[in-house]
Amino acid sequence: MGHVVAVVGATGAVGREMLRTLERREFPCDELRCLASARSSGKELPFRGKTIVVEELTEDSFDGVDIALFSAGGSTSRKFAPAAAAAGAVVIDNSSAWRMDPDCPLVVPEVNAEAARRRPKGIIANPNCSTIQMMVALKPLHDEAGIRHIIVSTYQAASGKGKAAVDELHEQRASLAAGEEPVSKVFPASLAGNVLSDWPAGEGGYSEEELKLVNETRKILEDPEIGVTPTCVRVPVATGHAESIHVQFHKPLSAARARELLAVAEGVVLGPEGYEPGAEPQPRSAAGTDPVYVGRVRDDLAVEGAINLWVVADNLLKGAALNAVQIAELVGAEK
Amino acid sequence: MGHVVAVVGATGAVGREMLRTLERREFPCDELRCLASARSSGKELPFRGKTIVVEELTEDSFDGVDIALFSAGGSTSRKFAPAAAAAGAVVIDNSSAWRMDPDCPLVVPEVNAEAARRRPKGIIANPNCSTIQMMVALKPLHDEAGIRHIIVSTYQAASGKGKAAVDELHEQRASLAAGEEPVSKVFPASLAGNVLSDWPAGEGGYSEEELKLVNETRKILEDPEIGVTPTCVRVPVATGHAESIHVQFHKPLSAARARELLAVAEGVVLGPEGYEPGAEPQPRSAAGTDPVYVGRVRDDLAVEGAINLWVVADNLLKGAALNAVQIAELVGAEK
Repeated sequence: MGHVVAVVGATGAVGREMLRTLERREFPCDELRCLASARSSGKELPFRGKTIVVEELTEDSFDGVDIALFSAGGSTSRKFAPAAAAAGAVVIDNSSAWRMDPDCPLVVPEVNAEAARRRPKGIIANPNCSTIQMMVALKPLHDEAGIRHIIVSTYQAASGKGKAAVDELHEQRASLAAGEEPVSKVFPASLAGNVLSDWPAGEGGYSEEELKLVNETRKILEDPEIGVTPTCVRVPVATGHAESIHVQFHKPLSAARARELLAVAEGVVLGPEGYEPGAEPQPRSAAGTDPVYVGRVRDDLAVEGAINLWVVADNLLKGAALNAVQIAELVGAEK
Repeated sequence: MGHVVAVVGATGAVGREMLRTLERREFPCDELRCLASARSSGKELPFRGKTIVVEELTEDSFDGVDIALFSAGGSTSRKFAPAAAAAGAVVIDNSSAWRMDPDCPLVVPEVNAEAARRRPKGIIANPNCSTIQMMVALKPLHDEAGIRHIIVSTYQAASGKGKAAVDELHEQRASLAAGEEPVSKVFPASLAGNVLSDWPAGEGGYSEEELKLVNETRKILEDPEIGVTPTCVRVPVATGHAESIHVQFHKPLSAARARELLAVAEGVVLGPEGYEPGAEPQPRSAAGTDPVYVGRVRDDLAVEGAINLWVVADNLLKGAALNAVQIAELVGAEK
């Protein structure tokens, strides 16, 4: 017995990954509806060896839909997710529109699967890419020792900003290779040969992206006392986010014990012990794969019982499409 | 009255920057000797509109030399710096060979110029690139509030690994632009489209580069109690290191007060207040310039009285050649 699934924003970078992920994980769907703006309706998308014609998203698109995966930006989600929920669908939303709504659970299946069941609005939020991979890596350590403070600096890929950003990075790279001045339209300056803070402003000198790491971490771990010190940085990588993370706990935790916990953690691939140049998880090799790679787990040099680690994942997969489909699997298995 | 200056390793990337820096800062030298390995002897280097023929480095190269700038790697420094000092030269060494020797001062002129006078071996060490820019940014804050703990994640450029590394990054970038698989010989994997931990191993799961940040910071600030938590990362940038820094102090320090101190700090260019995408200091625009750029100075969200900042500088200039020439200026002014 399968489900009727709708993918809203099916023609976008994450939407296409959602289709591929539903297919390769053999998600039990009897019918798949691909929805998008009028501009994209009529386009054809491949799914299970057939072709699905994209339909225009309207408030009437959700009749009979069991699960609606949204990846079409915050304003589309705010407008259409309630309509989908009213029609009886469970919405799994990849935008930031519903993440901090107390009536919408914010779910990473390896971390807080049970939260997905409490959804009074019929909407489950998919966390931000940089939060998801950090939560998968830190949850087993939090369960053991209780996180007090996280200091995280990110190395984030262009694809987190969409397909146009990836295209611009490629063009800028070609310009640099040709000895020409790169052109920047999507980015505020060349990302090629550079690093940038290019997210919209938040508050207090922080970017929106940084505040997401703070607020989403506290909501997912259900602890408003956890301190998070975020610095988000874009690097000239197409896909694959990396994070340099320092964690202090309520109870001391050794790197050796952290490695024991991470070795058996769901969704985690643990890197080699100790330091070896080039042996750490890398975005380029993580791209296109499902796991959260955790490496360089080491005792802190200054704070006893604190550890440092290096966390890498594909921001379009575990950071977006895969996590959303995993939530859909949780919801699908309920019925 | 000018000095007799020798540059050892004059044909290397940093050596050439040393020549350019001596020239543009109008360093008072009556004679400049360019020294290098036998392989490079006979090469010609431009200086003040003339041409200097590179001589082979031997133990007899330093007769009559007042100041010898070394940038030829640790083993050359270990072998020839004592000979230069014995011949009466003051050695300013850019390698890591003498940095932690208690009889060799480790000097950043804006930070601890007076230390350059105590040099029982006649050798003054130039700190590591990533340490220098961090010290210039943090010293005024240390003087005000006393640094207790620094947590730093770096975004380091290819040129820190030498000219072959920059060439390989360019070739890898061209390969990516052409849709081909990049070739890696200098780096353990492609740096283009990726980030890497590519330094030699240190101890305890840390790289050598990371331990330099710890040990050199303590020596320069003359406080062995300062905690340093380092994560060093190479990014696909040709020149210009960036650092994401969290600092906790003995006395609380506000971002507002830190900005007041940094606005008048020697060698620092302070970025705009608050957050604006793309307004932060960037390696690509810092490359080829002298200052240490400090931006994104903000109050920490979790630790009261702690601050976060973003520090960028040209790793070949302030991180190497410029700092060495500034030390030479200190030494030259003594006489």
